[in-house]
Amino acid sequence: MTSLTPTPADKFTFGLWTVGNPGRDPFGDAVRERLDPVTILRRLAPLGVYGVNLHDNDLVPAGATAAERDRIVAAFAQGLAETGLVVPMATTNLFTDPVFRDGAFTSHDADVRAYALQKTMRAIDLGAELGARTYVFWGGREGAEVDAAKDPRDGIQRMRDALNFLCEYVRDRGYPLRFALEAKPNEPRGDCYFATTAAYLAFIETLDHPGMVGVNPEVAHEQMIGLNVYHVVAQAIEAGKLFHIDLNDQKFARFDQDLRFGSESIKMMFFLVKLLEESGYDGPRHFDAHTYRTEDADGVWDFARGCMRTYLILKDKARRFREDREIQALISEIRAADAGPAPRYSRGAAAALAARPFDRGALAARPLPYERLDQLLIDLLLGVR
Amino acid sequence: MTSLTPTPADKFTFGLWTVGNPGRDPFGDAVRERLDPVTILRRLAPLGVYGVNLHDNDLVPAGATAAERDRIVAAFAQGLAETGLVVPMATTNLFTDPVFRDGAFTSHDADVRAYALQKTMRAIDLGAELGARTYVFWGGREGAEVDAAKDPRDGIQRMRDALNFLCEYVRDRGYPLRFALEAKPNEPRGDCYFATTAAYLAFIETLDHPGMVGVNPEVAHEQMIGLNVYHVVAQAIEAGKLFHIDLNDQKFARFDQDLRFGSESIKMMFFLVKLLEESGYDGPRHFDAHTYRTEDADGVWDFARGCMRTYLILKDKARRFREDREIQALISEIRAADAGPAPRYSRGAAAALAARPFDRGALAARPLPYERLDQLLIDLLLGVR
Amino acid sequence: MTSLTPTPADKFTFGLWTVGNPGRDPFGDAVRERLDPVTILRRLAPLGVYGVNLHDNDLVPAGATAAERDRIVAAFAQGLAETGLVVPMATTNLFTDPVFRDGAFTSHDADVRAYALQKTMRAIDLGAELGARTYVFWGGREGAEVDAAKDPRDGIQRMRDALNFLCEYVRDRGYPLRFALEAKPNEPRGDCYFATTAAYLAFIETLDHPGMVGVNPEVAHEQMIGLNVYHVVAQAIEAGKLFHIDLNDQKFARFDQDLRFGSESIKMMFFLVKLLEESGYDGPRHFDAHTYRTEDADGVWDFARGCMRTYLILKDKARRFREDREIQALISEIRAADAGPAPRYSRGAAAALAARPFDRGALAARPLPYERLDQLLIDLLLGVR
Amino acid sequence: MTSLTPTPADKFTFGLWTVGNPGRDPFGDAVRERLDPVTILRRLAPLGVYGVNLHDNDLVPAGATAAERDRIVAAFAQGLAETGLVVPMATTNLFTDPVFRDGAFTSHDADVRAYALQKTMRAIDLGAELGARTYVFWGGREGAEVDAAKDPRDGIQRMRDALNFLCEYVRDRGYPLRFALEAKPNEPRGDCYFATTAAYLAFIETLDHPGMVGVNPEVAHEQMIGLNVYHVVAQAIEAGKLFHIDLNDQKFARFDQDLRFGSESIKMMFFLVKLLEESGYDGPRHFDAHTYRTEDADGVWDFARGCMRTYLILKDKARRFREDREIQALISEIRAADAGPAPRYSRGAAAALAARPFDRGALAARPLPYERLDQLLIDLLLGVR
Repeated sequence: MTSLTPTPADKFTFGLWTVGNPGRDPFGDAVRERLDPVTILRRLAPLGVYGVNLHDNDLVPAGATAAERDRIVAAFAQGLAETGLVVPMATTNLFTDPVFRDGAFTSHDADVRAYALQKTMRAIDLGAELGARTYVFWGGREGAEVDAAKDPRDGIQRMRDALNFLCEYVRDRGYPLRFALEAKPNEPRGDCYFATTAAYLAFIETLDHPGMVGVNPEVAHEQMIGLNVYHVVAQAIEAGKLFHIDLNDQKFARFDQDLRFGSESIKMMFFLVKLLEESGYDGPRHFDAHTYRTEDADGVWDFARGCMRTYLILKDKARRFREDREIQALISEIRAADAGPAPRYSRGAAAALAARPFDRGALAARPLPYERLDQLLIDLLLGVR
Repeated sequence: MTSLTPTPADKFTFGLWTVGNPGRDPFGDAVRERLDPVTILRRLAPLGVYGVNLHDNDLVPAGATAAERDRIVAAFAQGLAETGLVVPMATTNLFTDPVFRDGAFTSHDADVRAYALQKTMRAIDLGAELGARTYVFWGGREGAEVDAAKDPRDGIQRMRDALNFLCEYVRDRGYPLRFALEAKPNEPRGDCYFATTAAYLAFIETLDHPGMVGVNPEVAHEQMIGLNVYHVVAQAIEAGKLFHIDLNDQKFARFDQDLRFGSESIKMMFFLVKLLEESGYDGPRHFDAHTYRTEDADGVWDFARGCMRTYLILKDKARRFREDREIQALISEIRAADAGPAPRYSRGAAAALAARPFDRGALAARPLPYERLDQLLIDLLLGVR
Repeated sequence: MTSLTPTPADKFTFGLWTVGNPGRDPFGDAVRERLDPVTILRRLAPLGVYGVNLHDNDLVPAGATAAERDRIVAAFAQGLAETGLVVPMATTNLFTDPVFRDGAFTSHDADVRAYALQKTMRAIDLGAELGARTYVFWGGREGAEVDAAKDPRDGIQRMRDALNFLCEYVRDRGYPLRFALEAKPNEPRGDCYFATTAAYLAFIETLDHPGMVGVNPEVAHEQMIGLNVYHVVAQAIEAGKLFHIDLNDQKFARFDQDLRFGSESIKMMFFLVKLLEESGYDGPRHFDAHTYRTEDADGVWDFARGCMRTYLILKDKARRFREDREIQALISEIRAADAGPAPRYSRGAAAALAARPFDRGALAARPLPYERLDQLLIDLLLGVR
Repeated sequence: MTSLTPTPADKFTFGLWTVGNPGRDPFGDAVRERLDPVTILRRLAPLGVYGVNLHDNDLVPAGATAAERDRIVAAFAQGLAETGLVVPMATTNLFTDPVFRDGAFTSHDADVRAYALQKTMRAIDLGAELGARTYVFWGGREGAEVDAAKDPRDGIQRMRDALNFLCEYVRDRGYPLRFALEAKPNEPRGDCYFATTAAYLAFIETLDHPGMVGVNPEVAHEQMIGLNVYHVVAQAIEAGKLFHIDLNDQKFARFDQDLRFGSESIKMMFFLVKLLEESGYDGPRHFDAHTYRTEDADGVWDFARGCMRTYLILKDKARRFREDREIQALISEIRAADAGPAPRYSRGAAAALAARPFDRGALAARPLPYERLDQLLIDLLLGVR
């Protein structure tokens, strides 16, 4: 059996904002102290974690002077050196400050857009300084409740302008960074622009430097509207665009919950882990989740351990699935008629196909024992085979 | 006021399968007779309709001989000539026949895939013969309930293979057809591949002939998962990919209802109509909706009239919105700070931006009177201004 | 036409927490100053408002001394006297304080349950002192993310114990108060106990004093899961249990939005207003909604005006609907076969019914022109008839 | 370990309409032959099934003569005798026939209502003849798409009239039958009356003979709108009203899927099975699910086996959960402060409580290690402890 003890080779990462989350919600006050970033490093390292990710303001408070900023960053860099943790990903907080209440890059206000660019340039500098290789964009306020004065096409164009500018900035600086765009359907905005990962996949092709831009799907964001997140991530991988991933969990069709990875959607998370492990994805497995608000300070580390443990359990289930002869034989049976190359067009091929006889009744009668297969998977997931 | 009487210039179309729908559902038998296609033409023409759309089997039953097919098509073509109606769009039924129960183009069975191609080539021939300019693909069975034996990446690749083949076929034949891909999140499959319009927008860029392929968003399909369909269609238009549109309505987050256009989502349909009318979209306004199952044969035409009437009412509301001075003044106020060109990168521009001071408090204090604007819109929609 | 200018006779009320909402959300800081309660009274009165509702801590901060409490209450009472506003409803904040993070009345902790009772007794005293006639219970923290250690049946029993105790308290004190229970499916808890208004209707019958307990449906809470709130409120009225109502709006199947009344669900809000106006409900029309977070301090009053205005527009639409001859004639036609009394059982009646012949074909052929009727309603709502 | 081989003592039942389902859906034709009821008995019995349930027309086609009916019933009774299977539950098909297109008991048409009563009386006779002890009511067509001509309160009153009549009928006949009411939020109607199990729980108390009426929750029907079905069934049990249960599974917030039990919602189904097994519920475990439409005739029995197997696996997990010392110790820790009796009101008790000091900070600091507990449950479910 695969070990269930995490090591840095597993590339598990947590955001400073995740384990550091104090548990404030729309109806209640904070229940835990906000944790110092260096403390987070020291608590995470012994758990086998690979690294941490951060928004600029997770580390450097808004309004810090340059000297404060440098002092904080130095202390944090020392913490990284001490613990051996890395910062593979960084991002910008473009949502907390009231200045962004109607959008950052897509605001109607050219000054707000400029400020958002400036803040992001500085945050990119910070990320690069800390060694990040991926820079994530989540447009928390890019959207609308009222569509009467906002044309979503303006939103798209403004986002394009901002990303083109920032791509140039990164190239000009020579930073070894790639961008990863993160979608969300709604919350905090009534409707967010770029509601799904697929919306970003389409958008990326319209950028000046599409090669350096990919996506950062978040499990819960797709589940909020009931999408099959395994299918979503598969499309991103097929397009060569899975640059990063945010792992968590969610009960469907409700507010953004950011639950411990694998705590709800066992079967779907199995397929997702299997896909990540078998597709060659070698980026971080980042947990963008929160500890239950009922938990105290100690519970945060139970939460972090749980995310990693369930990932490793599911990874081991994926291995067993591959090695299970009955399951693999059944899959071969189901795919038995999947012979032959892809159709290549020629006039002759078209004519031959047009003339080919088909016995629809016979085709419709070929067995597809999915009930049996799915039950074998349930058995495997539940540990009874 | 804009006339509320439809004319062919409005380009309203109905599917043969919509007004012809007999009202069968998963729990009940048909409540209306299936209508003869020529009868449909004769009933729709006097209502001011522009044309009808069809699946191959809406006109030619599966299993018809070549002679039967030719006789049916000739009678239908004569009906078109008589009534002046056109067939701007055609499509293939790849979902009713049990042969497609696990997919057509994405089936595991190479024979089923070949049969689906053959059926589509013939249906394309039929569409071209009837003068269609748009060919729609809705993959009703492309998806899965059980992910254990199907890799969604295979689904994407197989769909790509099929569309590349069919693009070549159309080019080889010299048909003046463009393809429009139609997404759906689920139903009848547990999860459909290409769950959203955006998933197709991303996919199109990977085809051999992306220029001849666009999307056919269906209002209800996006609403089923609570997406803002106005935002969805806006992205398609911004990408130059709105080749066709299916109009209907839906209560959110439930089964596919195909309700009379504008019967539920008044405000969102206002924005959608406004977008279609103001964006330069000049394709058909196709109603892919069904008469309530409670209705008898006469009610079908009430349904058809209602779809068009509400569209025209909302079109007139859009004109009033543009011409309403108070509304436009308020929008100008909200967008007052939207000055200046898009950010163009240069090292100097970046340096200047990095050094620019911002008064965040002042920016956050700029008023955004969306409550007032949205209420003016509600007043306008409800006819009290 | 009915006047669209609100007056106290319309019984419109707002919560202190609604117009006073500072716009903090899970991803962002407050955007507006918290308003002083007396200021709220002075701003609302000129708008034609009838009264305000409050949680204990909307008026008296947690931790206030008795002297502070009395001073605050006296100032507020004077504000009521000055403005002529009343306090028809009061409630308890049992969700903000971390002490309630795992429930108040349903907490596992007997001390927390006792504290929740004490806090509620004091808040009831406050409500009674201010003249409230309805006392609302919304169990913001009564629920679970983790079901492993909580039996929902315990939750029900503990809620029953608390309400029985508090009913006795009110009776013992001789307060002229009735209780109104408010349901919510989720948020902030993963799943709330008593997820729907109907769950409370069933529960009430198991209390010691069911006659003094009814429900307070909130529009958005039922819409969050896609229920038809008109049907929900109708069941409450049919049961004689609509003691209060929280009006707002919501896009379906997402986080709790508390949008301006009538800003989204125009058609459903029409039926709800019609029901309230025609059913004899004479309680407050309470708006439990929030101003968009994009709005500044002035926008709050636009928001408040908008809630009332749309209610009055829809009330006028309901009158027109009743007086519209074509609509009423069509309804009569649809209901033409609704003759005869309800079936009363006797052996003879059963025998007669068992023997009665039915012509199913003829019954199935009776017309039900709902498409026509619904289109007339759309026309009426859009102001084109 | 508990045996995973089903026996009649497990009380597993299937509807004739479930294993007999031919796989027709809104977009496709039947894929399997409809099975003869006696064949179903013969196939189910060797699997360890306890019994079968049926709608009247599952056994006796609509329009059968009395002689045909008697012949069919006799053959079926003989099949029961042969196989040892029983019929614990029966119900009426009030949804397939177009006569019910706008409701059966709640139709506007008094003749349709009378016919629905007659059909139900006959179906009750049939159920009683076959030995059923529970009679289920699912009002498949009781609801509306158009609310303009239907008052939901009429729907409630008419349903009450019908059930009061039928209760008398059963009592008059001396049948040992109880009624179980089954809710659904939507589909096939736009909105169903009695959208949730809780709506029926409230309604039952208003009937003439509430003691003989309970509920039949269906897992998927509550999940369709994202309710926690474990909480729903717990309320029914707490009220003494769980008379029957329909087990299946569902992906959230979409069309009614009727998937194999436990195939999707592993964690929630664990809690549901645990509740059924530990609450003293001794009725049938009825699987109201369908075989995937991709399956052939043989797959139906894989499906049936899978439903029962997963139930038994989860039942065994529930036993392990009870016997797991670490889990139980943790639960005890979480519930440690749950001491003391329920609050009983007296003036003295109220005064004492009013005066009692609470240390809110200390109470808020009591640990609630739900993350740890939930992870232990995940480990147990996945078979790694």
